[in-house]
Amino acid sequence: MSAPTVSALAGVDRLLRPRGVVVVGASADPDKLGGAMVASLASYDGPVGRVNARGVEGMHRSLAEAVEAAAAPIDLAVLCIPAPACAAAVRDCAEAGVATVLICAGGFSEAGGEGALHEAELVRAATETGVRVLGPNTSGFFVPPDGLVASFVPGAGALEPGPVAVIAASGGLNHALAFAFQRQGTGLSLGVGIGAGLDVSAPEVLAFCAEDPRTGAIALHLETVADGPALIAAVRAASRRKPVVALVVGEHDLGDFARSHTGALATSWRTTRALLAQAGAVVVDDEQQLVTATSVLATTRAQPSADPAVALVTAQAGPGLVATDALHGAGLRLPELTNPTRARLGELLPPLTYQANPVDTGRPGPRHHEVISAVAGDDEVDVVGVYALAEPVVDLVGAVTAADLRGRACVVGVDGTHDQVTSARIDGRRAGVAVTVGPTELAVALDALAQDARHQHALATDLASRPAVSRRLEPLRQPPTEAEAKQLLNGLGIATPQMRVCRSAEEASAAFRDLGGPVAVKISSAEVLHKSDVGGVLLGIRTEAALADAVEQLLPMTGEVLVEQMAESGTDLIVGVRRDPVFGPVAVVGIGGIATEVYADVAIAAVPTSIERLTGMVDQLRGRALLDGFRGAAAVPLPALAHVAASLAGFLLDHPEVEEVEVNPLRACAEQLVALDAVITLTDHPDLQQEER
Amino acid sequence: MSAPTVSALAGVDRLLRPRGVVVVGASADPDKLGGAMVASLASYDGPVGRVNARGVEGMHRSLAEAVEAAAAPIDLAVLCIPAPACAAAVRDCAEAGVATVLICAGGFSEAGGEGALHEAELVRAATETGVRVLGPNTSGFFVPPDGLVASFVPGAGALEPGPVAVIAASGGLNHALAFAFQRQGTGLSLGVGIGAGLDVSAPEVLAFCAEDPRTGAIALHLETVADGPALIAAVRAASRRKPVVALVVGEHDLGDFARSHTGALATSWRTTRALLAQAGAVVVDDEQQLVTATSVLATTRAQPSADPAVALVTAQAGPGLVATDALHGAGLRLPELTNPTRARLGELLPPLTYQANPVDTGRPGPRHHEVISAVAGDDEVDVVGVYALAEPVVDLVGAVTAADLRGRACVVGVDGTHDQVTSARIDGRRAGVAVTVGPTELAVALDALAQDARHQHALATDLASRPAVSRRLEPLRQPPTEAEAKQLLNGLGIATPQMRVCRSAEEASAAFRDLGGPVAVKISSAEVLHKSDVGGVLLGIRTEAALADAVEQLLPMTGEVLVEQMAESGTDLIVGVRRDPVFGPVAVVGIGGIATEVYADVAIAAVPTSIERLTGMVDQLRGRALLDGFRGAAAVPLPALAHVAASLAGFLLDHPEVEEVEVNPLRACAEQLVALDAVITLTDHPDLQQEER
Repeated sequence: MSAPTVSALAGVDRLLRPRGVVVVGASADPDKLGGAMVASLASYDGPVGRVNARGVEGMHRSLAEAVEAAAAPIDLAVLCIPAPACAAAVRDCAEAGVATVLICAGGFSEAGGEGALHEAELVRAATETGVRVLGPNTSGFFVPPDGLVASFVPGAGALEPGPVAVIAASGGLNHALAFAFQRQGTGLSLGVGIGAGLDVSAPEVLAFCAEDPRTGAIALHLETVADGPALIAAVRAASRRKPVVALVVGEHDLGDFARSHTGALATSWRTTRALLAQAGAVVVDDEQQLVTATSVLATTRAQPSADPAVALVTAQAGPGLVATDALHGAGLRLPELTNPTRARLGELLPPLTYQANPVDTGRPGPRHHEVISAVAGDDEVDVVGVYALAEPVVDLVGAVTAADLRGRACVVGVDGTHDQVTSARIDGRRAGVAVTVGPTELAVALDALAQDARHQHALATDLASRPAVSRRLEPLRQPPTEAEAKQLLNGLGIATPQMRVCRSAEEASAAFRDLGGPVAVKISSAEVLHKSDVGGVLLGIRTEAALADAVEQLLPMTGEVLVEQMAESGTDLIVGVRRDPVFGPVAVVGIGGIATEVYADVAIAAVPTSIERLTGMVDQLRGRALLDGFRGAAAVPLPALAHVAASLAGFLLDHPEVEEVEVNPLRACAEQLVALDAVITLTDHPDLQQEER
Repeated sequence: MSAPTVSALAGVDRLLRPRGVVVVGASADPDKLGGAMVASLASYDGPVGRVNARGVEGMHRSLAEAVEAAAAPIDLAVLCIPAPACAAAVRDCAEAGVATVLICAGGFSEAGGEGALHEAELVRAATETGVRVLGPNTSGFFVPPDGLVASFVPGAGALEPGPVAVIAASGGLNHALAFAFQRQGTGLSLGVGIGAGLDVSAPEVLAFCAEDPRTGAIALHLETVADGPALIAAVRAASRRKPVVALVVGEHDLGDFARSHTGALATSWRTTRALLAQAGAVVVDDEQQLVTATSVLATTRAQPSADPAVALVTAQAGPGLVATDALHGAGLRLPELTNPTRARLGELLPPLTYQANPVDTGRPGPRHHEVISAVAGDDEVDVVGVYALAEPVVDLVGAVTAADLRGRACVVGVDGTHDQVTSARIDGRRAGVAVTVGPTELAVALDALAQDARHQHALATDLASRPAVSRRLEPLRQPPTEAEAKQLLNGLGIATPQMRVCRSAEEASAAFRDLGGPVAVKISSAEVLHKSDVGGVLLGIRTEAALADAVEQLLPMTGEVLVEQMAESGTDLIVGVRRDPVFGPVAVVGIGGIATEVYADVAIAAVPTSIERLTGMVDQLRGRALLDGFRGAAAVPLPALAHVAASLAGFLLDHPEVEEVEVNPLRACAEQLVALDAVITLTDHPDLQQEER
């Protein structure tokens, strides 16, 4: 008999919108997992069956019995049983037509020993039956609008329904985030801790949330990414419909602790953040920002814009300065307001107030909504922040509600006693106005709105224009030497210095006469990736005598040397393409030398992508100003830089045998970009290796 | 008749601990400033006289009358009158023996026009009488333990007494901070908004707080600094007695860029933060961190330590990872625990938990206090964080209270519903245990404790060892050329390349033969600070012919050139000393090139200071790893680097005519540090200029 399947029922919707629930391993003792789950599920609107194999008063002895007895179809079984029993329980579920299970317990592969066996059995049971499994190793999930609390953390019962969906890698962080939203009065449409993620994954829950009419914005927490393309596709699809805000943990090497919890981090923190942003997610730095940004974006969203600008209206200069400093730190543009706006503000405000951006109004008066209307009506402004200390006579939410915002996004920032800010938040929720507390939170909110507007604009551009970059060459059978790599770059339209490969002092001497000095002499080898590190590069050779010395020194090292014209001076860049193990092909652009190696000042984008996005990558660099012609250097021609990145990307995409191409440095000379060095490495593709043998 | 003075009474103590208060310009209308102040002061324990010159039922017609009628001496007059009337009111106060006044109103020099006159009159009145003035342009101050609310913001009446003193540059931020402390349940000993700061200043209030037995920790907010040395002295004195936490606004204010090259990088924001830290303050990045750090430091303080280490005990891995990532980001050390600790944890915890650092316990059990004791008892650990989701069976505050902390500082981090975290905070206050909410706030708190421990250790070292660095030379009468500057460095024991000053091609040729190639040829001028920018530097000259070309090109520019031996390769540093316009002599150490110019990766310290602190400056650089010998370069000899900084500092201190000395680059060659360029600029000191004429 073939294993029973419930594939027709399978789906995250059955997990998160079950018509009925059973607790397998239920207990009457609330201190046990099975008892805590029964207690948590007491608030659930639908039927909750309880199963205890050992027979407990009022509980069923088997899953089948509980399903039979239920007043509605059972879609979810919450397994509160040890790891060794889970696989069989999944098969029981399939038999009984229960499409999904939640497994909170540990004791699988992370436990070592027998655990790996239990995990393999569980995965096989799930695969063979089509029953969908959330977990193991998660504290569960909750759907407050349905009173569904499948979590053993009692406080989860206090969560209110609302517009934010939480999708967290960890069950603990799912709860920490949910409670943080609760503390500031933002309700949840659902909260899911993915845990070990053996089956149900973050991308699937994202896809569910994108469709879910109760979800207005999504807070996403990631530790490690199992399936990069699936994640990126899900974020891209979701973010075009509703805001997605992402927190990625793991900037720093968290070592064994992270591995014990999440498995190895195969990709980099930086790559994950860059690609999430490219897919439309607002990327934040900590869980406080995640909560602030998602709450605000659940309430309001700015219009798509290539370069959104922020205006601030503040009643107190001190907090206004704190917010403005933070906005500059986030790289946001605070334009001076246009003359019509300033003229209007001159009519509305007392003479001594500051009427540029920020607008410092003094204590808000009865015409404060007109001040907000004037600023929101400015042609240069996309997002407006309005700050004041709470006072009985001040009603910022009312002023924003009464203002004519002309479609601009607007966020209120208040400071006051606990009661005052709670009251402002309640007013804001009633009126549909986003309310934050304190200048820093206000700045985080404005930054999130601007990021979202920029991403939405870029996504629309991406869809409109994907560059055709392809110039298929013969597959590479072995890693090219520097000379071969440079010839290949020439074939892609990328300039390199004039050079000769020389196998003797005589050849080198002839090359020197041919090229003219000064020249560089380098060892020629595909194996040595960092030639300078082994003393394999001698620069600025101006005389035949110096050449002879250099060749004598380097030729024995690899049997051949490159003699190459020295490039003129200029700004050194780094441009590379590589196959990220998690996300696939990406391009990297940075400033060469220590900017990349020490300050990690690089921009990363998934390829293929639009030429506009490749051109815009440099705007993400902290050292951006260097490209405009620093200290008399030539300005870097940005379209040419984007062309180099696009050509390399096209090459990588056409050549599955290529792992990475790194041009470092790519020198921005006065006339053109010149690749001074290039390294191409090949994948460990088994077919390729066979061919090589 | 000479102006009356009350200098015997003058002092911030009379302002902040008045025996009685009068409101001048009192009103019965609470919407007016004078009415709002009367309403706010209703909670004050002492007498509050009301003065209204136009005669209002129940109010006095003059200050003298009010003072006479009061049941206690009046020490503070709150002036709710227009700017033009303030100077006269100050003189009235002096006549009546009222030592201090608060002026909230604006309308002084910031208003332009007549305002400057009113300000001058006010300053003269204060100076001549000795009456101390807080303000103008502030929303006031409050002393919750005395019910004293001299603020027109009604919510200030809800502030509770407690251990934190707030000293804010702005009245608005004083209130914003006070409310933020109130929201998380931390009471205040006082809160002062300095406002325009015409008289009473932040350093004076700091000095008051250092003595004030009701103040346990100080939250300091700064925008601009009027008197740098006074501020630094006050912070140093206060921080040795109680923690000082400082927020400096203005990272991105372009107006703060200083005039000269190094100065432009060492912005006053950066300098202010560095010097505050050197004086013992914990420096934070935003007002949220200011509130968290001060609250925690008001409850607990770690022992002084040169390199404090942090341990984290977490019940949930996900939030533990967020906190750990943030701790790494703050540059904190999380040592692996010692074997005895790990053995003890092995006895206390289930086998599958992670028992290094962080310690991942799973849900805290009844022996959680023993886990905390084991970690706090580890010889490697200075500061302990304990995190868990709030659950009814979990009592972290109780566990920390029951633990044997062996003098280690310990902070609890919780996440839970509003009611749960409020309850945990109340428990913490009762038990004297610091409680934070969420992993990011916990990390901020641990970082603050570690910063404070490090600063306390450094302050003790500073006091123990101040280097004698002095080698007084003749005063400089005009800015030295590069050659002169380098001779001067040689005199200070700083190596420079061999060089010759040449006024003709023949001299240059002789120098070349003498020195041996390759050489650099540079224009010689004290006026051109950035010789490369004007094409005045030619490097790597190897032949007589190349030399002749170079000399022909450069000699006409300034009439003389330097011919200098090329230094061997190495890591380029920048070391400078300058007179900061606010703080006085400072030393700047950084990595040369774009690290300094683009990434602003510099360390700043006030000089003179200990050789230990000068040596440790490099540890503040983000590019610190470069100094250990990056990519085969020689490691930078740190004692020699500190010697260069100390020598330059000594020179600056001995030479009041010198404004700045910048050695850029200082090259770390294999054998020694070599100054490849040096610029010395002189002050605009009038005596010096006279001598020059």
